[in-house]
Amino acid sequence: MTNRFTLSVDMLGSETETNDILKGLNQSLLRNLNYKFQLYGSEKVIKKKIEKYKRLINAVEIIDCDSFITMEDKPSDILKSKKNSSMYLAIKSVTENKSNAVLSFGNTGALMSLSLLNIKTLKGIKRPAIASIWPNMKGESVVLDLGANTKLDSRYLVENSILGASLASILFKIDNPSIGLLNVGIEDNKGKEEIKLASDQLKELSNNFRLNYYGYVEGNDISVGKTNVVVTDGFTGNISLKTAEGTAKLFQSHLEDAFKSSISSKMGYFLSSLAMKSVRDRLDPRVHNCGILMGLNSLAVKCHGQSEYKGVSYAVDIIYSLLENNVNKKIRDYVSEMHSKLMN
Amino acid sequence: MTNRFTLSVDMLGSETETNDILKGLNQSLLRNLNYKFQLYGSEKVIKKKIEKYKRLINAVEIIDCDSFITMEDKPSDILKSKKNSSMYLAIKSVTENKSNAVLSFGNTGALMSLSLLNIKTLKGIKRPAIASIWPNMKGESVVLDLGANTKLDSRYLVENSILGASLASILFKIDNPSIGLLNVGIEDNKGKEEIKLASDQLKELSNNFRLNYYGYVEGNDISVGKTNVVVTDGFTGNISLKTAEGTAKLFQSHLEDAFKSSISSKMGYFLSSLAMKSVRDRLDPRVHNCGILMGLNSLAVKCHGQSEYKGVSYAVDIIYSLLENNVNKKIRDYVSEMHSKLMN
Repeated sequence: MTNRFTLSVDMLGSETETNDILKGLNQSLLRNLNYKFQLYGSEKVIKKKIEKYKRLINAVEIIDCDSFITMEDKPSDILKSKKNSSMYLAIKSVTENKSNAVLSFGNTGALMSLSLLNIKTLKGIKRPAIASIWPNMKGESVVLDLGANTKLDSRYLVENSILGASLASILFKIDNPSIGLLNVGIEDNKGKEEIKLASDQLKELSNNFRLNYYGYVEGNDISVGKTNVVVTDGFTGNISLKTAEGTAKLFQSHLEDAFKSSISSKMGYFLSSLAMKSVRDRLDPRVHNCGILMGLNSLAVKCHGQSEYKGVSYAVDIIYSLLENNVNKKIRDYVSEMHSKLMN
Repeated sequence: MTNRFTLSVDMLGSETETNDILKGLNQSLLRNLNYKFQLYGSEKVIKKKIEKYKRLINAVEIIDCDSFITMEDKPSDILKSKKNSSMYLAIKSVTENKSNAVLSFGNTGALMSLSLLNIKTLKGIKRPAIASIWPNMKGESVVLDLGANTKLDSRYLVENSILGASLASILFKIDNPSIGLLNVGIEDNKGKEEIKLASDQLKELSNNFRLNYYGYVEGNDISVGKTNVVVTDGFTGNISLKTAEGTAKLFQSHLEDAFKSSISSKMGYFLSSLAMKSVRDRLDPRVHNCGILMGLNSLAVKCHGQSEYKGVSYAVDIIYSLLENNVNKKIRDYVSEMHSKLMN
């Protein structure tokens, strides 16, 4: 079964180069012909740069926009004055069923609030969450929420578990992904009341239900890969993942400095540059980072604001896989099973 | 001015080798003669292993204990059955003014609760916080709270700012260390109510007061080194710093794998091994990680449970520097200035 899906791409409002976006879309198209793209951006620029991607030319529709949402724009201002912006129009296309998902590289807060307002949440899901795929010692895990909803509430933690499990089961092709709840220790008495309550509910739901709740995990367990899904609130998730990104950059910077410190290590750096590049590709957020806004009636995905073409292509393939495997049906199934379980 | 300080060392209940502890203490003693140590552990083992550290032998008092607190022991059990444990006796020594500070490698939760119960908080400080010194692009910063107190409350965030500023001013030898409040964005409207309230109070306190409040910082700003002090609650701090530690390990593990992948990179790895070691030393928690429990009448410091001798020596030097510069007087001055400011 292969379906053709149309993706709305917001081309403006970030440091990501038009050429990187087009090259990334083209790469995905070379692997899989079932994409169509609506490109929201400057028609003149896109037409000039798309020339070298012959196959892509026939798979796109260009919607000329010159207005865009800046990183500083606030949601309230956007509703007043940015209704013709590339992001707003890209989201509108999804709500009008003219496309299946939206991809942006711009202002995350604006993408979240405009998507919530226009695309709206799935039945049974009160608040959306941003999920990301994070590398670990064993492969990858899904971590959420990374900042869609900063309120700590057991209900949201349970919802996030369902959203994360749906995502992980499709992307990692496993039936019952294990779910860990991020906490300051693994013992039952650790953490805040909201987390203990969520843990109790998840245990209840795991009992004779498809949900595979592992228990508490700690910050370092994300990298260990102890569970397929790591669930937290948007405040903790946002800060801890940004801290981790900063640490990876710091590590890389220290390493580069150290390599410059002697002739032998300079030569070592040269000889090992390919190895370094492979690490960079695996851990660099410009290549490997997209935030998937889940729990809405359609997917909205935010890529890093300085994405390289590989990052664009990576995000497009993830979106296709989620659409092809009907992630929202999976979420709805989980929600209805959850309700029947909690009623019994 | 040089004072002689006595440090109680809990030798048991962790994976840190007795020899690493003794070697670390000896290293510090070689640099600075003004230490005395009370060693709480197996007299037989210590006496055997201390043989090769001639200078250290004369600077220690050994208090023979065979009971110790395990990583699994709960505070309530400890009060019942572990009053003869090495950690309990080491803390008791501080409360009886027989030593000036306590150093442990064992159960963090037990160290926190026993210290809080016995050593008690400084006047004007409601809850202690665990601070750590974290490397960044520009040098180092103080980050706190890393898990002493998981409750998010503006009062605690302001207290943590004072504790962090006192620590940073001594360790980094600067008069007015800048303080950043960890949040999910830098705009005024970002984050939770408790954080906004703390930010308002810190602004108020920075106005004509020694406190140097910078404003909000994000997770990645810790590694950038945007401020000398980064303040957060113990829940967020614990999770984000453990996430960062995990990321550093992941980075290192990926790098080692990548280096094994070809002959040229194997040779590169060999040539650059010194550079790698320097990075490891700078970022490895076994060398560079101690949690300083601040806000109590005496310092209690928790080192990584698998510390190497360098980590032990590093912690001892930090404790000496804080005692020599009377960190608790600095905190009391901040507290009294804060009260006079808030009353005006």
